[in-house]
Amino acid sequence: MTRSTITAAESQSTRRGRGRRPADEVRTDVMHTVGGLLLTEGLADLTFERIAREAGVSKTTLYKWWPSVGALALDGYFHAVEDTLAFPDTGDIRADITTQLHHFVELMTTTPAGRLLTELIGYSQTDKDLAAEYRRRYSSQRRELATERFQRAQDAGQIRSTVNTGVLVDQLWGSVYHRLLIPDEPVDFAFADALIDNLFEGITTRP
Amino acid sequence: MTRSTITAAESQSTRRGRGRRPADEVRTDVMHTVGGLLLTEGLADLTFERIAREAGVSKTTLYKWWPSVGALALDGYFHAVEDTLAFPDTGDIRADITTQLHHFVELMTTTPAGRLLTELIGYSQTDKDLAAEYRRRYSSQRRELATERFQRAQDAGQIRSTVNTGVLVDQLWGSVYHRLLIPDEPVDFAFADALIDNLFEGITTRP
Repeated sequence: MTRSTITAAESQSTRRGRGRRPADEVRTDVMHTVGGLLLTEGLADLTFERIAREAGVSKTTLYKWWPSVGALALDGYFHAVEDTLAFPDTGDIRADITTQLHHFVELMTTTPAGRLLTELIGYSQTDKDLAAEYRRRYSSQRRELATERFQRAQDAGQIRSTVNTGVLVDQLWGSVYHRLLIPDEPVDFAFADALIDNLFEGITTRP
Repeated sequence: MTRSTITAAESQSTRRGRGRRPADEVRTDVMHTVGGLLLTEGLADLTFERIAREAGVSKTTLYKWWPSVGALALDGYFHAVEDTLAFPDTGDIRADITTQLHHFVELMTTTPAGRLLTELIGYSQTDKDLAAEYRRRYSSQRRELATERFQRAQDAGQIRSTVNTGVLVDQLWGSVYHRLLIPDEPVDFAFADALIDNLFEGITTRP
């Protein structure tokens, strides 16, 4: 990319105001663009070149904020699904987790998100940098949001005080990832409901 | 490999008897060799060439039985861990699952098996053939063995009749794989015990 095209691209970013837009706003715009591309097309054709063009920013700007396309994809994806995967809090933990887990299953099975995440997890098994970015920019934050909701339910006396709420993340969303990654069995609402039922009811025949 | 080296390799396989060894015996020997290599060295230097040399069989024989090194690795690994991952049946389902899950966690965290499996799962996200071999030669068989043990417990009235025992595979071993693949949190016996506790006790505060 030549100096003149960089300037042309940057100039688009002034359209909303008289001066340069604040960095935060540009950053959010880029993530919005990337999130949109990921949820419609997946990871295949995502390059810094294309993102710079579609978001109307320079590649230099992108490189300044993100070390790799994978890192930017993860930030973009996190923000793109933040609302869809938000945790409701109606006071009924079981109902709220059911709502959220259904949204998660729907996202994974009816949009390119499922394939995107399994590919990123796949690559990260042999790419240490991507693995670190995945944990930092995506999974650890999602884990925290889920744990917070369960923590509130535990504080409200709905979940046993001896339950390690972090483990529930692996037994709900982790179990869904397990079936997405090794698709021996289907991922659907019935599966989501069975995951929840086993934990909330317990699996034994005790009275 | 020339015709004469193939013959030389095949001739080693006659050492135990007067004629050629039965195919089943050769096949088992090959899987034993591969399993041993995988549990000591992992996947990195595994080639048909090396396996043929170490198992004393021809490459032609290997190609006849296995379409790829990945397929042979999965068969070899399945047999190598079959005893370690066997399901005890003392009549106490919780104790038996605890024993088995501890063995699984130990295998995954103290031998190259953990890295081997996460790499195979990783590659299989973008390699359809490997994904099919993984399910056919490894995961579906392991899933069946686990489900059988839970089924017996269900028949014995220890597990609620409404529990889909297949889902338990995802909530126990699948949860461990989740942490191995996305290592935000540690995989240890305390984690294994918490997985079991959540399912057997239920997570709610009901009396």
